[in-house]
Amino acid sequence: MEMSLFNIFDLLGTVAFAISGALAAMNRRMDLFGIFIIGFVTATGGGTLRDVLIGQTPVNWMHNLFYVYLIGISVIIAIIFRNKLEYLKKSLFLFDTIGLGVFTITGVETGIQNGLHPLISIALGGMTGAFGGVIRDILCNEIPVIFRKAELYATACIIGGLFFVIMHRYQVNIDVIYVVTSLIVIIIRLLAVKYHLTLPNFYPKSTKAD
Amino acid sequence: MEMSLFNIFDLLGTVAFAISGALAAMNRRMDLFGIFIIGFVTATGGGTLRDVLIGQTPVNWMHNLFYVYLIGISVIIAIIFRNKLEYLKKSLFLFDTIGLGVFTITGVETGIQNGLHPLISIALGGMTGAFGGVIRDILCNEIPVIFRKAELYATACIIGGLFFVIMHRYQVNIDVIYVVTSLIVIIIRLLAVKYHLTLPNFYPKSTKAD
Amino acid sequence: MEMSLFNIFDLLGTVAFAISGALAAMNRRMDLFGIFIIGFVTATGGGTLRDVLIGQTPVNWMHNLFYVYLIGISVIIAIIFRNKLEYLKKSLFLFDTIGLGVFTITGVETGIQNGLHPLISIALGGMTGAFGGVIRDILCNEIPVIFRKAELYATACIIGGLFFVIMHRYQVNIDVIYVVTSLIVIIIRLLAVKYHLTLPNFYPKSTKAD
Repeated sequence: MEMSLFNIFDLLGTVAFAISGALAAMNRRMDLFGIFIIGFVTATGGGTLRDVLIGQTPVNWMHNLFYVYLIGISVIIAIIFRNKLEYLKKSLFLFDTIGLGVFTITGVETGIQNGLHPLISIALGGMTGAFGGVIRDILCNEIPVIFRKAELYATACIIGGLFFVIMHRYQVNIDVIYVVTSLIVIIIRLLAVKYHLTLPNFYPKSTKAD
Repeated sequence: MEMSLFNIFDLLGTVAFAISGALAAMNRRMDLFGIFIIGFVTATGGGTLRDVLIGQTPVNWMHNLFYVYLIGISVIIAIIFRNKLEYLKKSLFLFDTIGLGVFTITGVETGIQNGLHPLISIALGGMTGAFGGVIRDILCNEIPVIFRKAELYATACIIGGLFFVIMHRYQVNIDVIYVVTSLIVIIIRLLAVKYHLTLPNFYPKSTKAD
Repeated sequence: MEMSLFNIFDLLGTVAFAISGALAAMNRRMDLFGIFIIGFVTATGGGTLRDVLIGQTPVNWMHNLFYVYLIGISVIIAIIFRNKLEYLKKSLFLFDTIGLGVFTITGVETGIQNGLHPLISIALGGMTGAFGGVIRDILCNEIPVIFRKAELYATACIIGGLFFVIMHRYQVNIDVIYVVTSLIVIIIRLLAVKYHLTLPNFYPKSTKAD
């Protein structure tokens, strides 16, 4: 049962990142297979990194053909709704954030299941959440969005991860933990970008970044 | 016997990618060791990703010193024939395509040998084939060639992979499968680039990529 | 006892790369968590690649919370001394070189401990040493420093690695080997950059790199 919700969230993150990958690829006017490939790599990147780092190989998506179908369907949906081009960037950001939230939590969970220290599990969660989007942006030859719009990106992952660890220690029902902590990551990130919330800046105003 | 042809193809892809890496490095006027390193990473990248994803570690090239010698000799050959600079780009593309073809097939084979679903094996094959060239181009600070000249790139991998799966199911001699399917990938890709074949474009003509 | 010095060097490389990552992130005016993340990825990148390639998973830093604390402290130190901005680039290079030296040696050691051929162990060492800095520069959207200032970079790794292999064969005390070979890598690299030493250039002067 516990595994089942883990899998559902893994699939949810997969769908969100597949769509965000397909949108990014269409922004670059890639061909049909290019769109599918960027969608696939974005969707599987975070979970693949998580499994490789932890040593759970063959990696997760290889065991389950359902992922491939799901990514295919997600990409097709993204293509069908491509007309609303003016909303693409907003949608891309929304789906990227959902993928971030749920993959962060699957990463934290994987770490704790493997007996890793909570802090290290949170680090693993952050990597799992961020990697899909980073590899998507690198393949599209853009600066990763987390470096362009970094508003509380890592902060959101860390707070969500901390809540996961705390709720897990107090033996809250795992289904509740999943939903609550994923939402924490997603909501913090959405609010931060909407209201341009950032960490306090300690650089002097006079010097500029090159 | 089966393994032996797998190894021969792995070595053939290694030679092709080592040369393509050395050519790319010389295009960037790197020094001797830079040329060797880019050659090495390009040649071992695809197989390394394949082995890491599937969990066959230490990865393939680590078991076999012959790879290192072979890459060294391939790089030296590329250096000797560097004078024909005007042909470099064409050669780079040819060797990239040969590497793509044979590494795609070794990836599909590895997937099937590990009991993965045929579709997932084909995905693994595509990643194995593409990764060496992608990492070469990223290290040379160029947009990966598969995104610049994407003519039927993935299509070639998928068709070659499908033929591998089908011929494997009908128990065709494995040596025949290797040669035929690798050639399918290589020939489709060469013809596609020569005649600028692409998948049907569904973008409106008026909008432009930035 | 032998493992203990391995660990000390792994920690030393971790500190050096964490600082170099934090300096690079501050050069890009990233926020607090961005600085921590780039520091973390730079510090753990080389060792992570080493462990993944060899199949020692979960990777090294996951077993040891001390790494996370050490990286945190290193990053804080880098932030405190950020004022001396004019020295940042020089410091960045120095710490990058120390990380290169000690991580190269831990990579060679890991290869030999796993029964790999000496030449392959040296290749593994070079990858371990270089990867942290490469991933730092890619995430900061810069051309990796090893491709900009490549003065005897690989040469230093290879010579240090060769000395490691030779001294190991003659059963020199492992503590001595660690210190001597790391210093060999660091000193060769520092001298090469200071005096602009490069490998002999075999390109004709008339042609230019694009």
